[in-house]
Amino acid sequence: MHHFIFKNRELYCEGCKAKDLAKEYGTPLYVYSRRTLTEHFDKIKKAFRSIKPVICYSVKANSNLTLLKLIVAAGGGLDIVSGGELYRAKKVKCPPERIVYASVGKTDLEIQEAISYGILMFNVESTPELHNINRIASRLNKKVRVALRFNPDVKPKTHSYIITGKKETKFGMDSETLKNIFLEQYNYPNIKLAGIHMHIGSQISQAGPFIKAIGKVKKIITQLRQKGIIISYLNIGGGLGIVYNKEKPQTAGEFANKVLPLLKGLDLKVLLEPGRFIAGNSGIFLTKVIYVKNTPVKKFFIVDGAMNDLLRPSLYGAYHDVVTVNKNLKSKTQNQKLADVVGPICESGDFLAKDRSLEAKQGDYLAVMGAGAYGFSMSSNYNSRRRPAEVLVDGKTSYIVRRRESYQDLTGNEVILKKL
Amino acid sequence: MHHFIFKNRELYCEGCKAKDLAKEYGTPLYVYSRRTLTEHFDKIKKAFRSIKPVICYSVKANSNLTLLKLIVAAGGGLDIVSGGELYRAKKVKCPPERIVYASVGKTDLEIQEAISYGILMFNVESTPELHNINRIASRLNKKVRVALRFNPDVKPKTHSYIITGKKETKFGMDSETLKNIFLEQYNYPNIKLAGIHMHIGSQISQAGPFIKAIGKVKKIITQLRQKGIIISYLNIGGGLGIVYNKEKPQTAGEFANKVLPLLKGLDLKVLLEPGRFIAGNSGIFLTKVIYVKNTPVKKFFIVDGAMNDLLRPSLYGAYHDVVTVNKNLKSKTQNQKLADVVGPICESGDFLAKDRSLEAKQGDYLAVMGAGAYGFSMSSNYNSRRRPAEVLVDGKTSYIVRRRESYQDLTGNEVILKKL
Repeated sequence: MHHFIFKNRELYCEGCKAKDLAKEYGTPLYVYSRRTLTEHFDKIKKAFRSIKPVICYSVKANSNLTLLKLIVAAGGGLDIVSGGELYRAKKVKCPPERIVYASVGKTDLEIQEAISYGILMFNVESTPELHNINRIASRLNKKVRVALRFNPDVKPKTHSYIITGKKETKFGMDSETLKNIFLEQYNYPNIKLAGIHMHIGSQISQAGPFIKAIGKVKKIITQLRQKGIIISYLNIGGGLGIVYNKEKPQTAGEFANKVLPLLKGLDLKVLLEPGRFIAGNSGIFLTKVIYVKNTPVKKFFIVDGAMNDLLRPSLYGAYHDVVTVNKNLKSKTQNQKLADVVGPICESGDFLAKDRSLEAKQGDYLAVMGAGAYGFSMSSNYNSRRRPAEVLVDGKTSYIVRRRESYQDLTGNEVILKKL
Repeated sequence: MHHFIFKNRELYCEGCKAKDLAKEYGTPLYVYSRRTLTEHFDKIKKAFRSIKPVICYSVKANSNLTLLKLIVAAGGGLDIVSGGELYRAKKVKCPPERIVYASVGKTDLEIQEAISYGILMFNVESTPELHNINRIASRLNKKVRVALRFNPDVKPKTHSYIITGKKETKFGMDSETLKNIFLEQYNYPNIKLAGIHMHIGSQISQAGPFIKAIGKVKKIITQLRQKGIIISYLNIGGGLGIVYNKEKPQTAGEFANKVLPLLKGLDLKVLLEPGRFIAGNSGIFLTKVIYVKNTPVKKFFIVDGAMNDLLRPSLYGAYHDVVTVNKNLKSKTQNQKLADVVGPICESGDFLAKDRSLEAKQGDYLAVMGAGAYGFSMSSNYNSRRRPAEVLVDGKTSYIVRRRESYQDLTGNEVILKKL
């Protein structure tokens, strides 16, 4: 459920007409619904209320500061993966004890900054990384909490680029490596080994792979506890799927109902890292039809949004529903030419949607649905295109939460050499 | 040929050690060779000197202002595709009569800005666009030069995302549509229809598809001239391939030798739009090994550069050679585990190279070769990563031509709402 709905054939975001937002702020434009965002956070909180988990929103899904602030205000923590995300977490005053830091390639400076801020824990992905954190913590005279990331070697059904729990991926450790580190933790005097982390991938619709992975983690925990090892935290990651097309993903409640019994009696503080589940359907991408191009074989809606603004269709072959904002008419004609929604960028990979039954004319606004996660956060300036503005809607009011880039922004860090 | 070569097992860019550059400017880092850039421009100029073409460098390949300035200083023009690229062209004072503007989705404002600057011509991709340019030119009381982009329906061997001359793509017009516009040009009183444009794709190694396409264009020109239509310009686009791996692309000279005879006696001003050919091998991407991760099935060099810095491997499955800067030793062992070079980003799609025989240790610098085109220009801030710095080398001297982004740059356009 989200709050982008048609009333009298006009698309609304909460109490604001999408068309009015497009006119007021210009296109291309990202529009977020405050209510959808916070409700999705609450859904997870409610589903898992019996165990009061630390819910760390995955900043990379959508890192806009205002969105982060809303999540922190709702009691959420943040799952960060870089110094830049730590900077954002500080900007929104996220309490450090609600921050977990994952990434296979944390640099020395990033580790140092995170230790200094006093984050809850690092999710550690390899032995060299653990050595490095221990070394830096020692230099800072601190003892830092760590969860080891377990690679459970399970394969969820999703795009290969966002599978992260197979043994062939760069993520986590196999069970033997992980257990040995726990058993030899005296090697890391400035590390407090406190838990196990897993994250098997993204946009996963079914509980099966999670259950399989949690089963494997439980076995490890049992084995380690039998040897006297203390384990206090279990971070089961993120990856809950959302509806883009015809998926029927598990709800937060269904997921919790399957997972909670597995965690019962384990006496573990549980962490969750939802990103897409919270942000995905909280945003749309508004774009204007610049030209309608009919060719003998195809129809193209050429729009002012492009792959630089929303990379998912091009990079993952991702499906996003596309609708016109002032009517939800999809043509019924059987033999009609199907249409591609494409941007102005000079490559065939620049498309937002392919082979759709869609009617629109020059000047119409289109809404690309489900664009709240991995939308703006993956945007670039390819083709020297300025990145779009972002707007947050709260009931009948809208707020700019990121200004559209200017031409000056494009070259602000460049230096034209005079003497060449 | 390029000027990134090993001397005494040390990689140099012209007269500068890659390792020294990495240390001085930090990593990840783009490094460009001035000499390689200008020599590649000169190669094309020389190959086609008998017809003195307008060589419009394709800005999207690498839009760094200093590189653009060097090309303009060498007598080159610019092929632009957006208002942002026009802004760049103005910043480097490119004479307007050397600018051509292509893109399937030029907006009203972009068209107006380009007309006001007095560019040489627009490459027009559709009838609605032509109407629009005519309308805006009329409002500005100007007559503007246009080449119609012909879609020759040829299929070069390259990645599907960068094929642009097949009829199923969004690009150009079929011959009938194109001829009809020429014959009915009285419909566009503010347009001076002056030529034909084609661009069949990118990274094309062989002349065959070009020859086929030029053959088709010649036929159209002959037919139109027989009906009294004046055609003065032929823009044969870009797309010349470069060496990334084991390709043996045609040289500029070989290409010219095949193409020039076709153009003989046509009395046309020829335009070329090379991008990758000029910039591709003029740049490398330097990155540092943060951790070496050995798993039971794989070896990973986790580096501080990632898919946000260099998207080509992830988006196109593109191959880039990767070498260590202080020795060019590729392991000879047959049964050795192959290594992936991966970034810190939390998805499996984040890789720079896969299954390579490569030896390196923590702290070593790696050079990703052939990263001058579609490298920085496609970079993003995904995972809130700051975009890398860019350095130009000129002999023994290096210059920063784009500063590394700061954390502040990441959020500079964002507005944290106080009242929520």
